[in-house]
Amino acid sequence: MSTERTEIEKLGEFGLIDQLTKNFETQNASTVLSIGDDAAVIDHFGKQSVITTDLLIEGVHFDLMYTPLKHLGYKSVIVNLSDVYAMNAQPTQITMSLAFSNRFSVEALEEFYEGVQIACERYGVDLIGGDTSTSQKGLIISVTAIGEVTPDQFVKRSTAESGDLICVSGDLGAAFLGLTLMEREKKIFLENPQVQPSLENEDYIVGRLLRPEARKDIIDYLAEQNIVPTSMMDISDGLSSDILHLCRQSGLGCRLYEDKIPLHEDTKAAAFKFGLDPTVCALNGGEDYELLFTMKQSEYDKITMQEEISVIGYMCDLEEGNKIITKGNNVFDITAQGWNAFVK
Amino acid sequence: MSTERTEIEKLGEFGLIDQLTKNFETQNASTVLSIGDDAAVIDHFGKQSVITTDLLIEGVHFDLMYTPLKHLGYKSVIVNLSDVYAMNAQPTQITMSLAFSNRFSVEALEEFYEGVQIACERYGVDLIGGDTSTSQKGLIISVTAIGEVTPDQFVKRSTAESGDLICVSGDLGAAFLGLTLMEREKKIFLENPQVQPSLENEDYIVGRLLRPEARKDIIDYLAEQNIVPTSMMDISDGLSSDILHLCRQSGLGCRLYEDKIPLHEDTKAAAFKFGLDPTVCALNGGEDYELLFTMKQSEYDKITMQEEISVIGYMCDLEEGNKIITKGNNVFDITAQGWNAFVK
Repeated sequence: MSTERTEIEKLGEFGLIDQLTKNFETQNASTVLSIGDDAAVIDHFGKQSVITTDLLIEGVHFDLMYTPLKHLGYKSVIVNLSDVYAMNAQPTQITMSLAFSNRFSVEALEEFYEGVQIACERYGVDLIGGDTSTSQKGLIISVTAIGEVTPDQFVKRSTAESGDLICVSGDLGAAFLGLTLMEREKKIFLENPQVQPSLENEDYIVGRLLRPEARKDIIDYLAEQNIVPTSMMDISDGLSSDILHLCRQSGLGCRLYEDKIPLHEDTKAAAFKFGLDPTVCALNGGEDYELLFTMKQSEYDKITMQEEISVIGYMCDLEEGNKIITKGNNVFDITAQGWNAFVK
Repeated sequence: MSTERTEIEKLGEFGLIDQLTKNFETQNASTVLSIGDDAAVIDHFGKQSVITTDLLIEGVHFDLMYTPLKHLGYKSVIVNLSDVYAMNAQPTQITMSLAFSNRFSVEALEEFYEGVQIACERYGVDLIGGDTSTSQKGLIISVTAIGEVTPDQFVKRSTAESGDLICVSGDLGAAFLGLTLMEREKKIFLENPQVQPSLENEDYIVGRLLRPEARKDIIDYLAEQNIVPTSMMDISDGLSSDILHLCRQSGLGCRLYEDKIPLHEDTKAAAFKFGLDPTVCALNGGEDYELLFTMKQSEYDKITMQEEISVIGYMCDLEEGNKIITKGNNVFDITAQGWNAFVK
C-alpha cells in the first residue's frame, strides 16, 4: 500500500469518483454513455443482455488482513464476470459501488480501483457507473455485470437432459485450501506477531483464493468447437452444492466419479499437509469460479484434446438420485455442504 | 411489523430468495430470463439501455427507528427509477441486493420486499436478480435499475445551451423538513420514551421523506408534448448542488429566481415552525427526487398549462456565473451546500 494518505473528505464524493475512474477507457462500442450522468447508456446491436450482481462484504466474504486491495478489486470484477460466462455470454460492462468507513484513504481506494481496471482491461469490460458512500463498518462492494449473447444462445441451469455428460473446467478445491492456509497464518500472527508467515510453495492455492480468473477461455473454446452446453453454471459455492442446484433446476439426478474430479498437485499437497481429504475440499470448498456444464454425449470427441475440461460424471433420471462413486467403488449421496453465507 | 419471527437460517440463502420473490410476476416482454440462474437475460428489441445503481446504507441514508421497512423497500426502488427517468428513459428491470445482520427476521425482509413489489408493480418494472448476504452491521441495500430508450433519445446533463429555460417538477424542500421533523421526534423519544410523536398535519413532508415517487408522469408528459429536454437530471442532493452539476457539465452558468422555486404550503408551514427559511431547505435539502431539466425557450408555451412543471430560471454563459436572484432583488452566488455523504 502507498505510504501517502489523502482523506476522502478532501476530494468529496464527485472528486473521488473522478479520481478513481480517470484512467478507465471505454473498450466496447456498445458503451454509448459511461460514468458521470444519472445513468449509463448501452446499445445492443441486436444482442440480448445478461445481468448479474454480487455483494462482497468485509468480514463475510473477505478479510483485509490478508487480502491486498488491488487483488480484491480484481476479484470483485471476476466473480461477476464468471456469472456472465456461465450464461454462455461475453461480459461488456460493469457498475461498481463501494461503501467504506473513514479508515480508508484515497490511496487505498486507488489501489482497489487499480485491480478493477486490470480486470476490466484483461476481459475487455467497461466500468460504466457506480455509487460511493460511507459505511458504518467495513468495506462493502456491490458489482453488477452486463454481458451480451446472441439471441437465445444463453445457457440456463435448468435444461440438462438425462444421459448428458457433466463437465468442469480447470481444477477444484484450491481456493478453499488457500483460505484454510491464510486463516491459519492469521491466527499464528495474531498470537505472535513476530512469526513470519510461511507461504512458501503455496503460490497456487493462495493465488486461486486472492486472484481468481473467470473462464472466458472455456466459453471461447466451446464456441469454436460449436458446442452449446445443455446447461451451465459457475462453481462458487462448491461442486456438491452447485451440482445439486443444476440437478434440482433440471429435474434430474446425477452420478459423479471421485477419481475424475480434477485436482491440482499443489491442492493435493496442501490438503495432505492440513490432514484434509482433497476430494472433500473440491466438493465442499467453494470460490473456484470454474464452469460446471453438461453436454450431449455425442460431442465428447470434441473435448478430449482440451486438458482444461474434465468429464466428471453424467446426468440421470431424478429417481436415481444424486450420487458420487468413490475411488474405492463405494456409492454415497451428494449433500450440499458447500459454503453458505447463512449457515457457518 | 408482523409478530412472527422466522430466523433466516431456517430457510437458507436460496430458500430465502424464493420466499421473498415468489409473488413477483414478470411484466416486461423484454425480460427473457429472471431470478434463479447465474444472470438474468434481457432482450432489447432495437432500444438502447440505461443502467444506474445506488447504495442505501443504514445509519447513512436511512434510520430504521422511523423508517418502516415496507416504505424503505419502496424508496430503494424509487431512487433508482428516478435516475432512469432523468435520462428520458423508461425503467424496465431492477436487481436488488441486500446485506443484513442477524437482527432481521424473514418477516422483516418480507415487509421490505412488499414495498419493493408495490414499487415494481406501480412503475411496471421487473425484479430480475440480486444477491443476499449477512452484514457485520446494519442493513445495506444495493439496487441497479435498467431502462430503455429509443436510440439516441436519452438526455444527458452536459447538453444544456445558453438561454435555455431551467425547469423543475413538483415542489422542493419537503423531504428535508420531513427528515428534520423525524430527527427531532427521535431525539425527544430517546430522551423520554413516554412522549408520543406529534406528527399531526405533517403527512406531506413525512411522506416525501419516507415514500417518495419518481416522476414518470413528467417524462410521459414531455413525450406527449414532443419536448426533448436539452439536459436533465434528478434532484437528489438539493437544487443548488444539482444545478451546479448541470452547469459544470454543460460548461455554462445560470440564473435562478427565488420566487419561482416551487414550495408546497406544508413545506412553508413546517419551515416556519422550525425557524428555517423554506428556500434554503429547497436549495440545500436534497432527496426531492424531482426532475431538473432545461429546454428551449421556444417550447415554453407547451408547458404553461402543466402545473407540475415550474420554470425557475435560465442558463447563461459560463463567465456570468451561477447566481440566484432573491425576492428582495439581491443577487447571490449559488454554492453547493447540498447533502453530501462525505461532509456531514
